[in-house]
Amino acid sequence: MTRTVVRGGLVVTAAEEVHADVLVENGRVEALATPGSQQWAAERVIDATGKYVVPGGVDAHTHMEFPFGGTASCDTFETGTKAAAWGGTTTIIDFAVQSKGAALREGLDAWHAKADGRCAIDYAFHMIVSDVNESTLKEMDGLVGEGVTSFKLFMAYPGVFYSDDGQILRAMQRAGDNGGLIMMHAENGIAIDVLVQQALERGQADPRYHGEVRKALLEAEATHRAIKLAQVAGAPLYVVHVSAREAVAELTRARNEGLPVFGETCPQYLFLSTDNLAEPGFEGAKYVCSTPLRPKEHQAALWHGLRSNDLQVVSTDHCPFCFSGQKDLGRGDFSKIPNGMPGVENRMDLLHQAVVDGHLTRRRWIEIACATPARMFGLYPKKGTIAPGSDADLVVYDPHAEQTVSAATHHMNVDYSAYEGRRLTGRVETVLSRGEPVITAREFTGRDGHGAYTPRGTCQYLN
Amino acid sequence: MTRTVVRGGLVVTAAEEVHADVLVENGRVEALATPGSQQWAAERVIDATGKYVVPGGVDAHTHMEFPFGGTASCDTFETGTKAAAWGGTTTIIDFAVQSKGAALREGLDAWHAKADGRCAIDYAFHMIVSDVNESTLKEMDGLVGEGVTSFKLFMAYPGVFYSDDGQILRAMQRAGDNGGLIMMHAENGIAIDVLVQQALERGQADPRYHGEVRKALLEAEATHRAIKLAQVAGAPLYVVHVSAREAVAELTRARNEGLPVFGETCPQYLFLSTDNLAEPGFEGAKYVCSTPLRPKEHQAALWHGLRSNDLQVVSTDHCPFCFSGQKDLGRGDFSKIPNGMPGVENRMDLLHQAVVDGHLTRRRWIEIACATPARMFGLYPKKGTIAPGSDADLVVYDPHAEQTVSAATHHMNVDYSAYEGRRLTGRVETVLSRGEPVITAREFTGRDGHGAYTPRGTCQYLN
Amino acid sequence: MTRTVVRGGLVVTAAEEVHADVLVENGRVEALATPGSQQWAAERVIDATGKYVVPGGVDAHTHMEFPFGGTASCDTFETGTKAAAWGGTTTIIDFAVQSKGAALREGLDAWHAKADGRCAIDYAFHMIVSDVNESTLKEMDGLVGEGVTSFKLFMAYPGVFYSDDGQILRAMQRAGDNGGLIMMHAENGIAIDVLVQQALERGQADPRYHGEVRKALLEAEATHRAIKLAQVAGAPLYVVHVSAREAVAELTRARNEGLPVFGETCPQYLFLSTDNLAEPGFEGAKYVCSTPLRPKEHQAALWHGLRSNDLQVVSTDHCPFCFSGQKDLGRGDFSKIPNGMPGVENRMDLLHQAVVDGHLTRRRWIEIACATPARMFGLYPKKGTIAPGSDADLVVYDPHAEQTVSAATHHMNVDYSAYEGRRLTGRVETVLSRGEPVITAREFTGRDGHGAYTPRGTCQYLN
Amino acid sequence: MTRTVVRGGLVVTAAEEVHADVLVENGRVEALATPGSQQWAAERVIDATGKYVVPGGVDAHTHMEFPFGGTASCDTFETGTKAAAWGGTTTIIDFAVQSKGAALREGLDAWHAKADGRCAIDYAFHMIVSDVNESTLKEMDGLVGEGVTSFKLFMAYPGVFYSDDGQILRAMQRAGDNGGLIMMHAENGIAIDVLVQQALERGQADPRYHGEVRKALLEAEATHRAIKLAQVAGAPLYVVHVSAREAVAELTRARNEGLPVFGETCPQYLFLSTDNLAEPGFEGAKYVCSTPLRPKEHQAALWHGLRSNDLQVVSTDHCPFCFSGQKDLGRGDFSKIPNGMPGVENRMDLLHQAVVDGHLTRRRWIEIACATPARMFGLYPKKGTIAPGSDADLVVYDPHAEQTVSAATHHMNVDYSAYEGRRLTGRVETVLSRGEPVITAREFTGRDGHGAYTPRGTCQYLN
Repeated sequence: MTRTVVRGGLVVTAAEEVHADVLVENGRVEALATPGSQQWAAERVIDATGKYVVPGGVDAHTHMEFPFGGTASCDTFETGTKAAAWGGTTTIIDFAVQSKGAALREGLDAWHAKADGRCAIDYAFHMIVSDVNESTLKEMDGLVGEGVTSFKLFMAYPGVFYSDDGQILRAMQRAGDNGGLIMMHAENGIAIDVLVQQALERGQADPRYHGEVRKALLEAEATHRAIKLAQVAGAPLYVVHVSAREAVAELTRARNEGLPVFGETCPQYLFLSTDNLAEPGFEGAKYVCSTPLRPKEHQAALWHGLRSNDLQVVSTDHCPFCFSGQKDLGRGDFSKIPNGMPGVENRMDLLHQAVVDGHLTRRRWIEIACATPARMFGLYPKKGTIAPGSDADLVVYDPHAEQTVSAATHHMNVDYSAYEGRRLTGRVETVLSRGEPVITAREFTGRDGHGAYTPRGTCQYLN
Repeated sequence: MTRTVVRGGLVVTAAEEVHADVLVENGRVEALATPGSQQWAAERVIDATGKYVVPGGVDAHTHMEFPFGGTASCDTFETGTKAAAWGGTTTIIDFAVQSKGAALREGLDAWHAKADGRCAIDYAFHMIVSDVNESTLKEMDGLVGEGVTSFKLFMAYPGVFYSDDGQILRAMQRAGDNGGLIMMHAENGIAIDVLVQQALERGQADPRYHGEVRKALLEAEATHRAIKLAQVAGAPLYVVHVSAREAVAELTRARNEGLPVFGETCPQYLFLSTDNLAEPGFEGAKYVCSTPLRPKEHQAALWHGLRSNDLQVVSTDHCPFCFSGQKDLGRGDFSKIPNGMPGVENRMDLLHQAVVDGHLTRRRWIEIACATPARMFGLYPKKGTIAPGSDADLVVYDPHAEQTVSAATHHMNVDYSAYEGRRLTGRVETVLSRGEPVITAREFTGRDGHGAYTPRGTCQYLN
Repeated sequence: MTRTVVRGGLVVTAAEEVHADVLVENGRVEALATPGSQQWAAERVIDATGKYVVPGGVDAHTHMEFPFGGTASCDTFETGTKAAAWGGTTTIIDFAVQSKGAALREGLDAWHAKADGRCAIDYAFHMIVSDVNESTLKEMDGLVGEGVTSFKLFMAYPGVFYSDDGQILRAMQRAGDNGGLIMMHAENGIAIDVLVQQALERGQADPRYHGEVRKALLEAEATHRAIKLAQVAGAPLYVVHVSAREAVAELTRARNEGLPVFGETCPQYLFLSTDNLAEPGFEGAKYVCSTPLRPKEHQAALWHGLRSNDLQVVSTDHCPFCFSGQKDLGRGDFSKIPNGMPGVENRMDLLHQAVVDGHLTRRRWIEIACATPARMFGLYPKKGTIAPGSDADLVVYDPHAEQTVSAATHHMNVDYSAYEGRRLTGRVETVLSRGEPVITAREFTGRDGHGAYTPRGTCQYLN
Repeated sequence: MTRTVVRGGLVVTAAEEVHADVLVENGRVEALATPGSQQWAAERVIDATGKYVVPGGVDAHTHMEFPFGGTASCDTFETGTKAAAWGGTTTIIDFAVQSKGAALREGLDAWHAKADGRCAIDYAFHMIVSDVNESTLKEMDGLVGEGVTSFKLFMAYPGVFYSDDGQILRAMQRAGDNGGLIMMHAENGIAIDVLVQQALERGQADPRYHGEVRKALLEAEATHRAIKLAQVAGAPLYVVHVSAREAVAELTRARNEGLPVFGETCPQYLFLSTDNLAEPGFEGAKYVCSTPLRPKEHQAALWHGLRSNDLQVVSTDHCPFCFSGQKDLGRGDFSKIPNGMPGVENRMDLLHQAVVDGHLTRRRWIEIACATPARMFGLYPKKGTIAPGSDADLVVYDPHAEQTVSAATHHMNVDYSAYEGRRLTGRVETVLSRGEPVITAREFTGRDGHGAYTPRGTCQYLN
């Protein structure tokens, strides 16, 4: 395999910022050395002078080809992973889905089939459990053994993915025993559905009502409930897509009590708000996702949570639906708008912008986007860092380049960008995945099927 | 009507302690005067020298003839209200029950029929709503209008009284509009039922497991959830029979945020503990009630809550089942033990003992046992205080008398006492209900049917 | 002595609101009765129909003829107590001052001499301890015995009233032993003096800088420090003139921990703000007092504290200096403006306005202005309530009358009003002091010397 | 200079645990590589197979030859730095002392003179400011410029090192401007001195009274005060030797508010307690230091703080006084016992024991003992990590070796060990300081004067 040296860059990991040459061999980082000190022979030399060399991003929350609301998210594993690579992400963890009444295995097999041979970068799976029962619980043990070590449950979406508190408790007990990590969509869906119906009865059908009925207090409530159930079960908990400051407060409270509770937020909650949901016409539909966007005032609590480590991970919840033909389904009834937004390509850049804006340090950028998601889901130090022995998932990042986000230039298979026209400082230049150049000086040089399924260990934050 | 003067006692209300003569006419307090200053002519003179004169107790939580677990609580309105009077309580608020599928009205009528003409003291009703639906919600408005201004919902007991979060939200919204007060049994019954089943599967069938499966954290969880739902609905909330310190903490947090949230505890949580549930043989069954008794360490938090006003009311949740023939139903399966304990006769004395023990001041004793329950449920100042114009519900209380609690001497229609053998300082001597002597120098001098149904106004703590 | 009946009013105390006739004899309340029920013969009948009958106000913080900053406050005991009566206050607790190096006794005697025979209403004394030493500490015991049961210390004003933390600790230990209550002016005067000097060096000499240098955080700091010292000493603590929300937060925290810590605020902090300090020209000097006025945003925390009982008392800190000739001393140097504001006449009315505005209930109005200050300083139920046996300090208050506050019409001996032009709803009509009419239908009918020195018991909130 | 390779160890830094060979050249880490992958020629090869390779410890709090209480700490820079090296510490930051009335410069020069040419490992200086005045404040700017970037103030020890709140505020303001970091000994010395005197008057003269009079609440108070003063000054704060859980709570509260506040604790607070102070005879004197040892219950809060990052650093506060001849000074009067304990040699081992005991992860061990102190005091990544370009301060640590701590075998120049007889798992084997072997396979191979003065940058946690 090709020997590669990345020369002269500032290697930024969650832990360090050092000027170093990086030697890559056999798909792995072989050595780091002070610049110019080692006369490494290499077939490929990448000059990173004046650039950052950072670990490839780990996006722990994507939904490719995800069936929802009578349609399916419009990025395939092929298009979605290519877009991810363009954005500096080299690993995604996607969600395999159990159908109600079917086995976990069935769902997992289906997702393997969708992804196998099509991905440009490495991928792994979480498992959505839609139907907690004796047989499902047993299957969980097996899945942990084969590298699917996290299980998502929903307190929202009654009749679809919803689990009741008894089912949640049982799944948590099981995870407490088998080392799995329960991921929770924490919204009180039963109460929200009442508010949805009341809003529609009042004729409040526009996208912005999506944000009004899915109340921050009902996210906070469910977050607290999930924490208490996890505490009763003796299990850890990872709350996905936290958007409300009241929910952050619940996480903070739990963590101050020493509970093994974790929280993820997403760029849309950090950079967008209910102002977007209220855009005129049906434009707001572009921003319909759940948990919903919140009023701008919530953003400060999220940034604070990221700095204080009460929130640990920023994932995308990438789940794109085209404005034409998909979001359309909900014209005249916001509850029928497919929930989800594109973003897998934008995450690393938006978070770098947060560095530029002073919200985060460089190292914290890499921590929340690469290192922590890898540790959280059992992939570290293979993924998420640059150290001898790690996978050579490297991004040469130009911190000074300027770009304008646009659907016209992005690589996601969706007809709009949630950040259309936004100017950002910083841009991905070159991306290696296990030593192979996927993006080379802003050309796609990868290939479908390079990306490999990557079984995971259990959460590395639990002693 | 007879003119009565109660002479020379220390009149203790929630607000004052003054030596005063009390003039009673037409069933009401007519005047208070410095001792001996007024030469009131009176047919009946009661000498209270060296005694307290306190307002008759208001027990805001009783269940007479309450159908539960295939049997019914064993005090009738006749026996139960007599026992209440013996214990210095002159008003009870009992719970009328809506059967699933039936109208509120039907339940209320049934309870009126049970109580009418049988009570020794005054009574009022809350309404248990078992089936929240459009029709029930409309009925709520009407009931508020006719003096049934509080509605109890259950987060426990799935399949029986349980309401889901959507139903709870709707009922709270309605109460927020019509001035009603939602009373909540706050335990996560769905999760508890999982733990009950698991315990029974492990062969843990003794009464003490009742206390273990109904976890404090699941009371705290439900308390928090009820608070958040009330906040979303814009409604006040009254949490019944709070027993866990973690639940008190949730109330405290909510009240610190300025939310109109109230909490009640009961003497059994202040004076008994899981030690009682663990008594040998099947003795523990005597103490099975829900929320359950907690480990002793929780008591301090309850006393603190009563002092800090994070808990406002002490009621009994009087719901007696005989040890022989009723509690028996749960031999070999704690989940089949009828939930409930006797206590309507003991409350005032136990709380006076708390004064003797230094937990409460005298005025706080009267506040939590008389004044606040009356205000909370729209009966003040008719009930709960001694002031010109108030109903002459008066208790002459001897603070120095000693007594030993025992089923052998109590007047409740139940074959055991939860406080058997406990020595207490303080005893009711004479009780007037609207000026009529019900207990006279420790003789029963009242009559069935003296007690009148008393329609209530709305909660007096909401602006 | 004249027998008086106050007929037909709504008697409002901290605890009750009842329509009642009040019989007054020998300077005390003899009886309360339902209106018209008693045919009391009386020399004087006051018709209170449509009015409130409330206890006379207890102002626990006044400074008459108080030497400060090279001048003295401009109300004498004669003018000040008359003004108090006009405003519905029937008891003041003024501060006797120990001079540095002198005995407490000397200061107390001096204050007795100033007040004796001159007051229109009853009065009592706190003692300012300027010089904590072995001899002072011993004197404290004696003073408690003779009814001076509270001792004020200053963490502000180095070189004048300031005590260091060691002196404070010693005084608190002594109070912990002898039942006295330490009152604290809680501002970090040492740090503030640095900021004062720096501001003056920068040429910031206007009155508004008084508010900027005396930082809210330095009030909060001193409040916390006083609480911790009291905790070490095992003594209760009463913090005077709390103005900063951060200071309220410290009190709340301490009270949540169960510490015997109390807080007073004043009308100026509830109704005025740094906007007043910033009034053009030298107008701001009218509002210079310490703790200083705070930005408007702090007011909500104070109102909340009064509702939640984290603040218990509203006193005036009445300490008037004329704008001409006194406040003048600080032209060109805000640090030389005598600290203090008039207000003894306005307190009851401003707080009634707060009832009208929805900040407080009527009963809470009476509680914070009459009942609690009386209990706090050992005067209850003689003062602070209307009950058989209480002093007949009664105010007939017209809740519908309108008035405009103005120096042109007020009775305080000071040339400006801090509330000039403010329109208020509610007005004192008639005032009895121990049964004697001091104000009768808005005529002064009292006399100098009617007011009697009133020795006090110890704080009634401790066990 | 010698080229060294450390082969086959597990390189543990605050961030990573990787098996790697480490190449050292010119005193610095030149490269890290997967084991065996690089055929580096080297004069010296150290086999670390089965061992850890960790960064040399950074002890940010030592007092060599420190004059205190009429004597001086008994380790010289020579003996103390040798002992440090034996214990795996390769950098100390010692405290230069300003004498009252003298210039900072004078004190700093004196400390340079003591250390110069005598140290076995690298060293830097903090500056103790005993006399804050205009001239001192100006000198602070200069010192920051030359690498003395942190300034220690005392709220304890009135008359010796004590600064009042005004002096503290001024120093903090200056540090806020010049980038310096204020280090605070946070105990209310004024109040403590009262308690000391009272204890001695009661005849309580034994060492254990040292722990009783220096109350946890008075540490918490001072901690809070320092935080508020820093907040007013707009400056960061580092609180030294935190020992009381109540003080940790203050730090936690401040950090939750987002303030730049940091806390250090020491091994003695984690492993010893008031039980040691109460050892029979005069033995307790060995454990007299300030802040004092606390009751055992405090330890959990300290461990929790280290895990939650509310405490960031573990230093030793190494300040040894011999039991014979020095601690003796306080026989019969605990206040005369020189305050301080030995420990510079034990820190890394004790904290590794905490890893073995499950209190800390391996990476957190290195973080609190090496990386964070280096970052906190401007030495990172030169010190505190193992990365290309870092100083080659490396420790080969045998995690399985067992040792028993004893004065008989330790290298500190003091006649007792605070941990006598304690068995520990883990031991330093070999230590490099800038590539030079100081300890080689448990032989001292270093030399006096190898250690170099190391100027520091400013705190690296402030944006």
